[in-house]
Amino acid sequence: MTRDDARALDAQDPLARFRDAFDLPPGMIYLDGNSLGPPPKTALAGLRDAAERQWGRDLITSWNVNGWIDAPLRVGGKIAGLLGARPHEVAVADSTSVNLFKLAAGALGLRPGRRVILSETGNFPTDLYVLEGLARTAGAELRAVHPDRLLDALNEDVAVLVLTHVHYRTARRWDMAALTAAAHAKGALVLWDLSHSAGAVAVDLNDCGADLAVGCGYKYLNGGPGAPAFLFVAERHLGAIRSPLSGWMGHAEPFAFEHGYRPSGDIRAQLCGTPGVLGLAALEASIDLQVQADPAAIEAKGQSLCDLFIAETDSRCGRFGVELATPRAARERGLHVSFAHPQGYAVVQALIARGVVGDYRSPDLMRFGFSPLYLSHAEVWDAVAILEEVLATGAWDRPEFRARAAVT
Amino acid sequence: MTRDDARALDAQDPLARFRDAFDLPPGMIYLDGNSLGPPPKTALAGLRDAAERQWGRDLITSWNVNGWIDAPLRVGGKIAGLLGARPHEVAVADSTSVNLFKLAAGALGLRPGRRVILSETGNFPTDLYVLEGLARTAGAELRAVHPDRLLDALNEDVAVLVLTHVHYRTARRWDMAALTAAAHAKGALVLWDLSHSAGAVAVDLNDCGADLAVGCGYKYLNGGPGAPAFLFVAERHLGAIRSPLSGWMGHAEPFAFEHGYRPSGDIRAQLCGTPGVLGLAALEASIDLQVQADPAAIEAKGQSLCDLFIAETDSRCGRFGVELATPRAARERGLHVSFAHPQGYAVVQALIARGVVGDYRSPDLMRFGFSPLYLSHAEVWDAVAILEEVLATGAWDRPEFRARAAVT
Repeated sequence: MTRDDARALDAQDPLARFRDAFDLPPGMIYLDGNSLGPPPKTALAGLRDAAERQWGRDLITSWNVNGWIDAPLRVGGKIAGLLGARPHEVAVADSTSVNLFKLAAGALGLRPGRRVILSETGNFPTDLYVLEGLARTAGAELRAVHPDRLLDALNEDVAVLVLTHVHYRTARRWDMAALTAAAHAKGALVLWDLSHSAGAVAVDLNDCGADLAVGCGYKYLNGGPGAPAFLFVAERHLGAIRSPLSGWMGHAEPFAFEHGYRPSGDIRAQLCGTPGVLGLAALEASIDLQVQADPAAIEAKGQSLCDLFIAETDSRCGRFGVELATPRAARERGLHVSFAHPQGYAVVQALIARGVVGDYRSPDLMRFGFSPLYLSHAEVWDAVAILEEVLATGAWDRPEFRARAAVT
Repeated sequence: MTRDDARALDAQDPLARFRDAFDLPPGMIYLDGNSLGPPPKTALAGLRDAAERQWGRDLITSWNVNGWIDAPLRVGGKIAGLLGARPHEVAVADSTSVNLFKLAAGALGLRPGRRVILSETGNFPTDLYVLEGLARTAGAELRAVHPDRLLDALNEDVAVLVLTHVHYRTARRWDMAALTAAAHAKGALVLWDLSHSAGAVAVDLNDCGADLAVGCGYKYLNGGPGAPAFLFVAERHLGAIRSPLSGWMGHAEPFAFEHGYRPSGDIRAQLCGTPGVLGLAALEASIDLQVQADPAAIEAKGQSLCDLFIAETDSRCGRFGVELATPRAARERGLHVSFAHPQGYAVVQALIARGVVGDYRSPDLMRFGFSPLYLSHAEVWDAVAILEEVLATGAWDRPEFRARAAVT
């Protein structure tokens, strides 16, 4: 494929207009939106308004007059549309890790007598860490098995199966409908981590019969660094699920200051403390942009970008020892692509120095995310050309590219 | 006292210079900084820099180059100086409610064999709600007793005593040293909620032998709406305390992506998910301002403002049925003052309409906070004059002042 071929694809891109909603640094090809999405211009403006006018001018009255108190459910309702969920099934709160704790604990309560939390050994570490902490606290058992053995391990002891829909390293995508059905056949619930799915692949939680889900606001949703996370509880579970983190914002009447906890009967029961308004403001503006794009069109463009990257990297860089570590079939993956290379860390640093920003996952993965709202096929083509140049010239072989940073 | 007397006190105010650090709305006397502190100008600038330059320009590299990854401990270390704590004993993370859950659970682990969490019935409701949820999740018992019966209820069953240092309604301040000693005499730990203390009264956690504490970033610390909260673990407990919310940021090596959770041996073990960077940026700039003032001077000025408000309100408004609901002795209270009045809600709304912003706590409390960094004695004098006018004219008796808002 030539660069003109890539430009021809861009000429037919139904999402091309979204690029202008972002103000990316000149000369940068940003392939790390799967780790931290860049700010839409409206997110920066929304944050400034929340800080300077709402906080600075309206002060305490903003809880009412600027709708702060409703933000967790209001923004959740908007995210629902990206996930195949109903607005009253989604809320924004806390971090993904904290939300995973809440919902996994809630699932244990919904399946009394079952004490096993089942997951896979390759799951994102913080998910396993959090489940380990929950198991220790609540007297449950975390059972993490090899992904190939998951179906065998699903039995009547399992209260909840916890999986990350799109894998953070390989981008391998679980079949949500099939896994959910398999768990339900054994009477277990499923809790999906959608951190690498939301805003990337077209998720349809209710169509799959999903029970519970959590996800991240700062990757493809572009909500800002450490943005508040979201959680989903299927309508049929809303009345019965109990959060272990029963803070005032989940109380039926938070400002009645009753002595005993009386959970709100709806998704609000999954809120805990005072919401982080500034983070919510940036996230909300980003979501307001995201919902203007059809999730199916987002996934289709993202797959097209990934396909181009895989094909060109294979053909131009295979001779330098890069190996695809991501499923080749688009339906089996999300919107990031990993290639293994023995010098992956240094190669990624050399790319960053040339304006092509990806990241690295130990021990040897170069990881590149293809966020459809602001990337073009031409940029992907250019990124491969620069990767080829770095590999062909050995430009990665410098001390400053080998030196490890605190966060990799 | 005349207004000139109040102005004479202001002329000697060693903290007067801090007023210029804030840009309060013209004509407003803001007596609600105990609920939501206003933004220092530098907090708005810090937030803009974090969003526009760091997020927008430096993007993912900010975790390293702009120190995002260190922010929870860096900002915690700065807050430590306000609390009589060592820098490595304090971190910023999550909400106050979530932090209370973590540390109360941690305390149960530090006192194996003891299953009682002791608190008082008048404690801030979310604290009791969270402890109730923890007790249910972890198989412990929450015992909330009348404050007069706390010492009797302290026995060898108690793992941890959980108290709010300054009461959210009455501003009554517990004797931290005495209560801590009483708990220790029974082998129990104490967990202090400093939400209404930090940035207001001079707390000396280590001098009191305190074990654990949490607190709020958005009241006297002026960190912004829903700012991240802080937590304190005394050095002697750092090695042994375990967080139930064992997310990746508390792992000994968060980016090694090990399969099992291995807690960091220091205060970082109390972190869980990805930190909310935007909220942290505003909080950090506010703390950078706060630490320029001596905590003892802050408390002294705050007490002077409260004393003035109490004396003037008693003398000018007592005939309208307002009754002090706060300890009269400054050493027994924090920096807010509550007066009861049967029409308290409507009176507060009428005051707000006149630019005097306080708040209301059911069933009849008018609550006013006296944050020393930006308030003057003259403003306090003016606020009482306006309160007198509202009460004397019955200006509160209008339908729009009686209509309840969602958040009161």
